[in-house]
Amino acid sequence: MFERAFNFSAGPAALPLEVLQQAAEEMTNFRGSGMSVMEMSHRGPEFMQIAEQAQADLRELMQIPKEYAVLFLQGGGLGENAIVPLNLMGPRAQADYLVTGSWSEKSAQEASRYGNVALVAPVSKPFTTVAAPDTWTCSPQASYFHLCTNETIDGIEIGDVPFEAIPPGVPVVADVSSHILSRPMPIERYGVLYGGAQKNIGPAGLTLVIIRHDLLGRASPVCPSVFNYQVVDQADSMFNTPPTFAIYIAGLVFQWLKRQGGLKVIEARNLAKAQRLYEHLDRGGLFFSRVDPRYRSRMNVTFFMRDEALYDPFLAQAKAQGMVQLKGHRSVGGLRASIYNAVPMQAVETLVQFMAEFERTHG
Amino acid sequence: MFERAFNFSAGPAALPLEVLQQAAEEMTNFRGSGMSVMEMSHRGPEFMQIAEQAQADLRELMQIPKEYAVLFLQGGGLGENAIVPLNLMGPRAQADYLVTGSWSEKSAQEASRYGNVALVAPVSKPFTTVAAPDTWTCSPQASYFHLCTNETIDGIEIGDVPFEAIPPGVPVVADVSSHILSRPMPIERYGVLYGGAQKNIGPAGLTLVIIRHDLLGRASPVCPSVFNYQVVDQADSMFNTPPTFAIYIAGLVFQWLKRQGGLKVIEARNLAKAQRLYEHLDRGGLFFSRVDPRYRSRMNVTFFMRDEALYDPFLAQAKAQGMVQLKGHRSVGGLRASIYNAVPMQAVETLVQFMAEFERTHG
Repeated sequence: MFERAFNFSAGPAALPLEVLQQAAEEMTNFRGSGMSVMEMSHRGPEFMQIAEQAQADLRELMQIPKEYAVLFLQGGGLGENAIVPLNLMGPRAQADYLVTGSWSEKSAQEASRYGNVALVAPVSKPFTTVAAPDTWTCSPQASYFHLCTNETIDGIEIGDVPFEAIPPGVPVVADVSSHILSRPMPIERYGVLYGGAQKNIGPAGLTLVIIRHDLLGRASPVCPSVFNYQVVDQADSMFNTPPTFAIYIAGLVFQWLKRQGGLKVIEARNLAKAQRLYEHLDRGGLFFSRVDPRYRSRMNVTFFMRDEALYDPFLAQAKAQGMVQLKGHRSVGGLRASIYNAVPMQAVETLVQFMAEFERTHG
Repeated sequence: MFERAFNFSAGPAALPLEVLQQAAEEMTNFRGSGMSVMEMSHRGPEFMQIAEQAQADLRELMQIPKEYAVLFLQGGGLGENAIVPLNLMGPRAQADYLVTGSWSEKSAQEASRYGNVALVAPVSKPFTTVAAPDTWTCSPQASYFHLCTNETIDGIEIGDVPFEAIPPGVPVVADVSSHILSRPMPIERYGVLYGGAQKNIGPAGLTLVIIRHDLLGRASPVCPSVFNYQVVDQADSMFNTPPTFAIYIAGLVFQWLKRQGGLKVIEARNLAKAQRLYEHLDRGGLFFSRVDPRYRSRMNVTFFMRDEALYDPFLAQAKAQGMVQLKGHRSVGGLRASIYNAVPMQAVETLVQFMAEFERTHG
């Protein structure tokens, strides 16, 4: 029974301890209001202030241009797999999808129920790399081009999106669920960025959508109103009752990020954490990564053991030492260390030392 | 600055203090796991246990027959306005709606985008009563019959649904958002009951759907997978990442309800609270209710003042005395005291005494 575990969950995932402590302190009486944030009308002055501050801090952190709307929705990344085409397919009903892992594969499958979905490159499993951008077969007529810039399950990250491989004028739509806020991103190159909150933003149940204003107003007649981006934007994300407590926690995370020094500072930390782990994996011991080094995720480090029989003892001993949620996703097996913003270098260092010790005793 | 206000919010609304205190205590380390509930994988053993216990407790409290699935979704009651027809319109594409207030009116409007919606009775505004059931013009061919059994904005409650006025074989779909868990309900008479959580269940961002198994599997091809009731049921509400923290809080509320003695005990308390308030409104003082006494809500007591100029001083003085969120919905004006399960008789008593005092000084 440890006070705080080293939490490598892929999501819902570790949050900054300071954020949780503040939430606990304010739980029964938010700043003299006599109410928990959970008990406040979303249209009252206390919560309106929370929501406005959260959006302002996010805009500052990500340097979101004023031509973009920030929407707080529900349904998660998986919900967006339908909500994106419902909003953006338009009369052309044709979209290009790059499939680089389990998540973008699901996105393409769901979208194909709303229009013609073309894959710009062949799907090759297991997912370990990204097809060379100069081989992508994109259509200039597509309503949009969709990709997932960090595949949580497979550990594949496209750090620098090759925008030059995508026809100009085709809006780029990115699922950034599992690496948003881990690094600066060139928002102005995208049409839409979206993500479930439960990695670097806050609790599950909140979805963030950042969309260029000119892409609003294209929704299908069968798009539910609560997921019509234009309707949500016009109501300042209060068309229906938003997930208020999740927005409050996200706001505390944004303030924590600002106190850390912003996204460049966080990026440097994340890079150092990932390098420490990948360097160990590349040493040729019991553990190895199978992901193309050019596309290795800084957030989700997937790895395997050369001896299948050692997974269970490794996970059990790790847990006994306070390192939890290291199991790989059931669809790919192996191990996965998700090292989001709130996971400190100390956790990575502890894990690497444990891996080295485990190799000495089981080598 | 009061430690805890008397909170009359219509939703998100007051929660039991015990629940908030437990959530605060468990915030950084849930029962020795070393994690906040917010930081747990929804597929890990700790959260699976939380979700299973929550569902079991809800089934016990509401006496939900085993022929019904319990689904935890997102999108709120307003989301269901589209999700219900997307799941239930079927090839007949025809549904009957009873409009008794602002919420059922929105439900009918949204549903009309997915099929032919017939209103079983004329809409009469302002909403103050329910058309006599023997005048309802229902179709035996309807895919379903929809009503809202408690209109939060207008303060109209249908305590005993006249099921005999609805053709046998037509599934009854009820939006029970704002009075679920306030009283026992005859689940077996319904096809579907649904509600946003932010009244008597828990935090905003969680939607509860109770559906008879034979109604699963009728979804439209354009229904997003995360809102396809059958898909969600088959995945035990974990097709996508559920709003885990909201489910945890809901589970704490269910346990609190069990400790109170269950829904019959709560119903008696709610009845006493509502009677205390309506009796005062009927005394002929400054305040009055305009709702037909047969359909007055026990949860949302809407009322008006005979002198318009007194609303602002009344609200200001109430707030100064620790009674908050008493303003009526902006679409109908006036005042509203929402007295959900977690609002104690002491709050109602304090409010009534204040109203009487206000009448003495302004009469």
